[in-house]
Amino acid sequence: MAGNIFGNIFRLSTFGESHGEAVGGVVDGMLPGLPIDIDFIQKELNRRRPGQSRITTPRDEKDRVRLLSGVFEGRSTGTPIGFIVENENQHSADYDNIRKIYRPSHADYTYDAKYGLRDHRGGGRSSARETIARVVGGALAKIILNEYGIIVTAFTKQIGTIVLNTPYTSLDLSKTEDNIVRCPDAATAEKMIALIDEVRMAKDSIGGVITCVVRGVSAGLGDPCFDKLQATLAHAMLSINAVKGFEYGSGFSGSSMRGSAHNDIFYVDGDEVHTRTNFSGGIQGGISNGEDIYFNVAFKPTATILMEQPTINTDKEEVNTIVKGRHDPCVVPRAVPIVEAMAAMTIVDALLMQRSISGR
Amino acid sequence: MAGNIFGNIFRLSTFGESHGEAVGGVVDGMLPGLPIDIDFIQKELNRRRPGQSRITTPRDEKDRVRLLSGVFEGRSTGTPIGFIVENENQHSADYDNIRKIYRPSHADYTYDAKYGLRDHRGGGRSSARETIARVVGGALAKIILNEYGIIVTAFTKQIGTIVLNTPYTSLDLSKTEDNIVRCPDAATAEKMIALIDEVRMAKDSIGGVITCVVRGVSAGLGDPCFDKLQATLAHAMLSINAVKGFEYGSGFSGSSMRGSAHNDIFYVDGDEVHTRTNFSGGIQGGISNGEDIYFNVAFKPTATILMEQPTINTDKEEVNTIVKGRHDPCVVPRAVPIVEAMAAMTIVDALLMQRSISGR
Amino acid sequence: MAGNIFGNIFRLSTFGESHGEAVGGVVDGMLPGLPIDIDFIQKELNRRRPGQSRITTPRDEKDRVRLLSGVFEGRSTGTPIGFIVENENQHSADYDNIRKIYRPSHADYTYDAKYGLRDHRGGGRSSARETIARVVGGALAKIILNEYGIIVTAFTKQIGTIVLNTPYTSLDLSKTEDNIVRCPDAATAEKMIALIDEVRMAKDSIGGVITCVVRGVSAGLGDPCFDKLQATLAHAMLSINAVKGFEYGSGFSGSSMRGSAHNDIFYVDGDEVHTRTNFSGGIQGGISNGEDIYFNVAFKPTATILMEQPTINTDKEEVNTIVKGRHDPCVVPRAVPIVEAMAAMTIVDALLMQRSISGR
Amino acid sequence: MAGNIFGNIFRLSTFGESHGEAVGGVVDGMLPGLPIDIDFIQKELNRRRPGQSRITTPRDEKDRVRLLSGVFEGRSTGTPIGFIVENENQHSADYDNIRKIYRPSHADYTYDAKYGLRDHRGGGRSSARETIARVVGGALAKIILNEYGIIVTAFTKQIGTIVLNTPYTSLDLSKTEDNIVRCPDAATAEKMIALIDEVRMAKDSIGGVITCVVRGVSAGLGDPCFDKLQATLAHAMLSINAVKGFEYGSGFSGSSMRGSAHNDIFYVDGDEVHTRTNFSGGIQGGISNGEDIYFNVAFKPTATILMEQPTINTDKEEVNTIVKGRHDPCVVPRAVPIVEAMAAMTIVDALLMQRSISGR
Repeated sequence: MAGNIFGNIFRLSTFGESHGEAVGGVVDGMLPGLPIDIDFIQKELNRRRPGQSRITTPRDEKDRVRLLSGVFEGRSTGTPIGFIVENENQHSADYDNIRKIYRPSHADYTYDAKYGLRDHRGGGRSSARETIARVVGGALAKIILNEYGIIVTAFTKQIGTIVLNTPYTSLDLSKTEDNIVRCPDAATAEKMIALIDEVRMAKDSIGGVITCVVRGVSAGLGDPCFDKLQATLAHAMLSINAVKGFEYGSGFSGSSMRGSAHNDIFYVDGDEVHTRTNFSGGIQGGISNGEDIYFNVAFKPTATILMEQPTINTDKEEVNTIVKGRHDPCVVPRAVPIVEAMAAMTIVDALLMQRSISGR
Repeated sequence: MAGNIFGNIFRLSTFGESHGEAVGGVVDGMLPGLPIDIDFIQKELNRRRPGQSRITTPRDEKDRVRLLSGVFEGRSTGTPIGFIVENENQHSADYDNIRKIYRPSHADYTYDAKYGLRDHRGGGRSSARETIARVVGGALAKIILNEYGIIVTAFTKQIGTIVLNTPYTSLDLSKTEDNIVRCPDAATAEKMIALIDEVRMAKDSIGGVITCVVRGVSAGLGDPCFDKLQATLAHAMLSINAVKGFEYGSGFSGSSMRGSAHNDIFYVDGDEVHTRTNFSGGIQGGISNGEDIYFNVAFKPTATILMEQPTINTDKEEVNTIVKGRHDPCVVPRAVPIVEAMAAMTIVDALLMQRSISGR
Repeated sequence: MAGNIFGNIFRLSTFGESHGEAVGGVVDGMLPGLPIDIDFIQKELNRRRPGQSRITTPRDEKDRVRLLSGVFEGRSTGTPIGFIVENENQHSADYDNIRKIYRPSHADYTYDAKYGLRDHRGGGRSSARETIARVVGGALAKIILNEYGIIVTAFTKQIGTIVLNTPYTSLDLSKTEDNIVRCPDAATAEKMIALIDEVRMAKDSIGGVITCVVRGVSAGLGDPCFDKLQATLAHAMLSINAVKGFEYGSGFSGSSMRGSAHNDIFYVDGDEVHTRTNFSGGIQGGISNGEDIYFNVAFKPTATILMEQPTINTDKEEVNTIVKGRHDPCVVPRAVPIVEAMAAMTIVDALLMQRSISGR
Repeated sequence: MAGNIFGNIFRLSTFGESHGEAVGGVVDGMLPGLPIDIDFIQKELNRRRPGQSRITTPRDEKDRVRLLSGVFEGRSTGTPIGFIVENENQHSADYDNIRKIYRPSHADYTYDAKYGLRDHRGGGRSSARETIARVVGGALAKIILNEYGIIVTAFTKQIGTIVLNTPYTSLDLSKTEDNIVRCPDAATAEKMIALIDEVRMAKDSIGGVITCVVRGVSAGLGDPCFDKLQATLAHAMLSINAVKGFEYGSGFSGSSMRGSAHNDIFYVDGDEVHTRTNFSGGIQGGISNGEDIYFNVAFKPTATILMEQPTINTDKEEVNTIVKGRHDPCVVPRAVPIVEAMAAMTIVDALLMQRSISGR
């Protein structure tokens, strides 16, 4: 298990380094007969692409996806969907000076420790470019979720010390894409953008938090033991570069609550079962209960900063290094579609498993 | 994937409901030739057993484990180790009144939604008794880790609002087992115990946070993409009942830091590579870097409280219910060995995979 | 992947050595809500148990199965079904003389090569006793298949040079259990029994072939690529001790045919699609086509014979050895229920996967 | 498990239809640091390509492979190797007439039954073009095996009724590639070629048998239970289009032998353990014993024949059909490298697992 395959029934296998020929992947387990809208997939990719605004890296990558199989006359056939995005606009020479350098808080040292060698250009496999394949896989997953009325929406909740504390239930999430930082509250968004601008000009970087909400999941998805729905979601989220934490429902704040306040009281509305509060985050005993699933994902500040730092080289000598290249001062705005993609694939996998159990 | 199997190379398959005949499991992938000390395994089980102190449930379960296979003349043979712990001291009648009740924030409603039926007695498969098999699996994993000098230690960092803020590097973790709440700081432990006592007498419950530290992991364990070491650890932790969050290294607090402060600077000490800080939590790019791996796990307050609560029944009628039975007012003290067990199995799985890659 | 887990959605995890405390397993992925008839499971086990007739080993093992979980009020709950069969009537001393011997064509030498040690008593994990867990898993699988009207029937087609050449379509398979060799043709059965008797008295052993027929499988089960239905069936069959070959439909004899004779011509009968011949063995492109699935499984002669043979010991010295113990001169009659069990689990796994794809 | 991923540690994920844009795949789990010779990979592909001789289909496909990732400065990096082969020279119009036809003994009917739709052009996913990805995966596997001195060689043993009965140990397998039918015995090869010519001119097709020999495997590879080495080899072989049977070592002929003749007697040669006969086919108890591994694979006659045949259409009407297009009258010669590829990947997977168990 070299770990480049995600999912059990809906499986994404990915490949590609930032400075190789292409990145891409294979989705094995796409439901047959669904309409495959290439424009929708490309639009999802555009949400993650570099150069989309002044607060992201100025690299201007078009990232045009090409579907190679598994689609016939506009519909999925149930066979694997292979896809590639060619690499272009690479400045490999930008990386010559780090060929023998282990950059701080990067994957340089650990890749060498694991494999005995590495492709140093642009971070190789540890590059954020790897997430292209995740977004394509996520777009295909969303096509399945769409059949079930399930909607996955993520937004920026925090950049550095700027925190949007309004509960998501009081926000208009349709405004998330209205600004370049992807925060649905315009005033907070402005502050977040100003902070990223400040950090970028200081040649520094900053972290943040993304909230993701999954609506329309019926009760019964997930598993009771090792593959609890929150466990597979956590796995999915922590597999994204720069993620440091995950919490769902009441999360870490639930640790200081008492059971009498934390328990979500059931009630019946017409024929539907609901809970009056949702500290459970839509999941009880590892299985969805029909309420919204929501969770937070913490991102560290980008490790690549444009100021000089002490470090070591591959000969174990202490040296100073200064990183060149074009980088995001904050990964959070571009990570919003990636969080959605990973969530969508996780939910689809649980959904397809439950189809097998319930027979419908 | 009904989700009752954990791991890829070192695989634990578990079974058992709290009021069935027995709980148990199978470990497939135990390394051959290692000494199997049944007393050590039992000792680990005793750390999780109910009735061990006044702040846990008064159920007095002996939980004697019986190894059925895979051990010959005191050593592992490399074949599966099957094991069972018989159930005893069950008060099934305690649960008669909830047969048709969906308790708040329990798995009753979701199990019915998933399977169409459930064993209502003692929570069935959603019972904490299921973790017995995890602790046995974890003990076997620790026997492998011991060969590599890898030590997994967890402790209680927070109960309700009582928080031990001292960094783990300034604590003497060998004192963790000195008190019943498993907090290595005696003064804080006393406050925690007092809080649990208070909550218990109020027929309420409380949450908390466990910190886990893994020492002695050499650089190179983990995978670069979907199975990053932090992702499999998060999966493992969120698969434990009542867990609401996971963060490693700087965690959620890293989100408000700048890269210049967050980056861990490498240095060389003799022949060893180290970092001056460890915001990375011992993992970079999904792969261990040789520093301590540490992470926090948030637990919600126990859903089972002894006061009357409104809820619904299986006929979708709103009713009041009061839960009988003997329950932990706080799961955290008994969850410490479970966190260790899941961490140990996760690290072993990565270790065995890396043996395959590196050939040593 | 130590290889002690079988299946993807319906997964059997097994453990146990012949001279350990017990053998058993866990079925993860049993469909919920089905009636679990313990008598049926025991009856299946009785079909494989030693001592059932004069042509099997005289070891008299009762092999009573005990279900430990996953069943509530007579129905499967969808949670794992753990089960054990205690070992008894072991003559471990029978094996003292082979502790340092590598018996010819046994797994002694290879286990030592793989693991560096082995439990020499009764073949350890390589014992035919391991198949107890398969038969239990198969019985549970048959309970699912029963809901779909799918029937798995195996019978003895060949013992040594005695071959039943009548096509299965001309046989009355309900007569299979009428004789101790499990051949539905009484006259042939008599000759087979006589041959086994002769071989047994000569302290020798003999091989044979089992045919298995699966009726009632609707079109659409199986996968198009690596997990073609014939591939997973072959995997299942070759995982049985002593199996040397597998062929389905026309099998090896199809290699000398021409396409014009081999192609199965479709026709329509009412609303049903059928083929006039069935050289395809019910599978086309890896997927069931609705016709009977049938295949042959070749077994070698039992390696354990009661005459003196030259071999080597663990010090790599050439020695003579004579095996004690009570053994089957021919494994085929007792392997009939094992072939059925493995086939049933394979078909169930494909069935549950197809429920996910088709949503019904 | 849609079944388009093969292997556990060394995993090949494939995609592509014959008339889509490209076929390709991803190898996840390639050992790092090995020399990747693209010419070798292309040479393996050339052995399977159409149009290579008069006895194969006249389609002239160049099948140039393009590696997209996972290789840096001529060496594998341990990250996934993505690859594609563009489709070209497609005559999609050749298939217009079968759009609504279910061809006899093809996957047309079963794909529709499984997925509800299909890409009818050129067989879609069921096309032999899918094996391109297998050959690339196999070539990468052979690069690993080469480090261990393990050599996989397959050859044509039978075409129709022309059978090469000489044991492989008396053949010079280096002559296999000397003729277009890939039979190492020149005289037999001539007869085989004449038979294929005759069949082709009769617009018919013919089957055959391939023998595969794996030399240099040390003792200890494989697993004792469900994933016995012969079981994973059988799975691999039966996953190849048109394969109807698998036998290893003595195979089906072993069924009529007695144990006293069938048992392979051990002896010691210097420090090496060997057996005087090799009816075991190099595998005992599911684990390699150091002798040659050898097995036979039976292929049916190509289903696509150029004469008119009765069949049904998608409206369940009985019609006559005549297939156009360019097809192999016998798949066996081109299947030789595919058998090798699947065997190589299977052995590598076992090898990498054993590295984990033995730690070397």
